[in-house]
Amino acid sequence: MITYTYEHFLNDLELLTRQCQSFKADTILAIARGGVTLGHALAMSLNIRNLQSIRAESYDGMKQREGVSILGSCDLSASKRVLIVDDIVDSGKTLHALLGELQAKHPEIVFKTATLFTKQTALVQPDFSLHEATDWIDFFWERDYLQHLKNLKH
Amino acid sequence: MITYTYEHFLNDLELLTRQCQSFKADTILAIARGGVTLGHALAMSLNIRNLQSIRAESYDGMKQREGVSILGSCDLSASKRVLIVDDIVDSGKTLHALLGELQAKHPEIVFKTATLFTKQTALVQPDFSLHEATDWIDFFWERDYLQHLKNLKH
Repeated sequence: MITYTYEHFLNDLELLTRQCQSFKADTILAIARGGVTLGHALAMSLNIRNLQSIRAESYDGMKQREGVSILGSCDLSASKRVLIVDDIVDSGKTLHALLGELQAKHPEIVFKTATLFTKQTALVQPDFSLHEATDWIDFFWERDYLQHLKNLKH
Repeated sequence: MITYTYEHFLNDLELLTRQCQSFKADTILAIARGGVTLGHALAMSLNIRNLQSIRAESYDGMKQREGVSILGSCDLSASKRVLIVDDIVDSGKTLHALLGELQAKHPEIVFKTATLFTKQTALVQPDFSLHEATDWIDFFWERDYLQHLKNLKH
């Protein structure tokens, strides 16, 4: 297991910002929940005021079939170049479904994707990513943000 | 100036989570950009999957008049109890405008508001808040997330 700390994140933020700068995005669309802290961070580091979020949830359908529901909504009427941000691309199903839906709805917008971690086997490879996900990653937003919930219960 | 660190934030997250728990929100609506990291954190600590964001921007209108534009969009069709989250309530104009618009549009939804800091002079006082804002607050998401941007330029 990789313990992904806030300090690790700040280092990665610099590296990912470097990668994403050339795209000159005007909008950050963070995938909730996992991509939201990173989306905020990239919106600050890339100086992008138009920060929005969208939800995507996997569901189990019939045997051997799984789907993805896109929930929430975003307003891309003022957007031309949208950077979709998530913490990790695992199976890639979420990103694949979301990209398909957004591109169909907004053919005039250029979409690119950025993540911290990506699995080699993912259905979609993001345009910008830092690390191959070879192990379970314990992100600080799944550890630190919950740490205090544990305290509450005792 | 108050230097608001990540460690400070984690302590506050526990305190704010305690305050907000009784509301039993089913949705977190974070105000971008400043409220987004906190929104993610509260969504985790309160175990709320429905995390969304909305944008609000102040604009200067005619002399002595200022307004607030609500930008972006959210989908509250599955929501009954929405916790609106921001880092700080300063003048309160943003929160006032957003609350007015959301309550008019969704009279059946109960909205409550949570922030880390609040000015005593604010137009709206949030339902849940931790600190009175008596000085400029240098939030880590306005410092750490940008620190590395400065490195990029050198």
